[in-house]
Amino acid sequence: MDVEIWSDIACPWCYIGKRRFEAALERFEHGDEVQVTWRSFELDPTAPAEREGERAARLAEKYGITVERAREMERQMTETAAGEGLEFRFDLARSGATFDAHRLIHLAGQHGLQDAMKERLLRAYFTDGELMSDRGTLIRLGAEVGLDEDEVREMLAGERFADQVRSDERTAAQFGISAVPTFVVDRALGVSGAHPPEALLELLREGWARREPAPVVVGGGEACGADGNC
Amino acid sequence: MDVEIWSDIACPWCYIGKRRFEAALERFEHGDEVQVTWRSFELDPTAPAEREGERAARLAEKYGITVERAREMERQMTETAAGEGLEFRFDLARSGATFDAHRLIHLAGQHGLQDAMKERLLRAYFTDGELMSDRGTLIRLGAEVGLDEDEVREMLAGERFADQVRSDERTAAQFGISAVPTFVVDRALGVSGAHPPEALLELLREGWARREPAPVVVGGGEACGADGNC
Repeated sequence: MDVEIWSDIACPWCYIGKRRFEAALERFEHGDEVQVTWRSFELDPTAPAEREGERAARLAEKYGITVERAREMERQMTETAAGEGLEFRFDLARSGATFDAHRLIHLAGQHGLQDAMKERLLRAYFTDGELMSDRGTLIRLGAEVGLDEDEVREMLAGERFADQVRSDERTAAQFGISAVPTFVVDRALGVSGAHPPEALLELLREGWARREPAPVVVGGGEACGADGNC
Repeated sequence: MDVEIWSDIACPWCYIGKRRFEAALERFEHGDEVQVTWRSFELDPTAPAEREGERAARLAEKYGITVERAREMERQMTETAAGEGLEFRFDLARSGATFDAHRLIHLAGQHGLQDAMKERLLRAYFTDGELMSDRGTLIRLGAEVGLDEDEVREMLAGERFADQVRSDERTAAQFGISAVPTFVVDRALGVSGAHPPEALLELLREGWARREPAPVVVGGGEACGADGNC
């Protein structure tokens, strides 16, 4: 069964959602038969390499709230993340473009390292204060999960996987996906949001049930039976 | 979209169903995106290399009807086939095991010639009076559709694709398929029988509609929107 997860790096619910999905997958009876693919979704495709100033101040301006209220929201998010075993350091986080990081995830996918790369990038952004648009950083993080440094360097210098990132985003638009994380099972069933493991497990089970062919309709159909009776 | 068709060679409704399916596919809006796979299904896995006597006589004995009634059924089937542009020659048909013919269809699949091979074998059986268990015949028919004679000869001498034939049959059993042809779309929807093109077109359209993700459920899910609003 195919599960595609549209997700960004600089997206707190995507990281939290990843843990919740993993918990669901752990409990899913047919987990061995699930193939997860991470799909690209940039929350802000126009982001500069790095945004200036404090994150909470930017949020405050964007939503017309006080900086103190924005910091309070960050504290709440940090607590929620801690509940999933994640360490969010908004004080360190460096916001900026994630396009190249998405390309790196696609490259890792070709080497069977997609999940490891996605995980490493999320931690780099949320815990380690790494900048996702910095190529040296991406080369180092790629090597950490087992990618070849030269291949990553060459990819970043060129346009490789740019089409795949955009193609993921076009597919998201076609599917009406406007928020992430969004989990899509066999392109038949989709759920947006970092739902609790129970809900994501329900999605997996419903997706699985759909895979069973509907009761095969024999009535009215001219056919030959296993007894050779036509 | 994947369409798997479980089918035998010595199966009149399978040949007629193939034509009806082709007519449906011709009219289907997304025909270009349909990948058809022919799956093996032996109506009689215990069949000898060749059955003795007249087909109608065997049918008569099997179903407790007169030979004349069996011949009448053959005439009706021949007329139905003619309505699809097919020439059925039950007077020539040589009944017997189809296991090797199914292996040949699998081999052809590896060379992008599966449909051509399936078609050629059906015609060989129903029109040309060819024996499906005869290896020389299979080598010649394989070469006719573009397969390498030596590869076919070597395959027939060994066990290649035997597992695939049996695996198709196990899957059929799991899916509750007891009659052929059976058409299964994306392993989500199945129909048994040589239904008219309109009904098979309906199956294709219903299968297609199922591919669209259900309206993505956002309610209650904690997510980050494309505006960066988490």
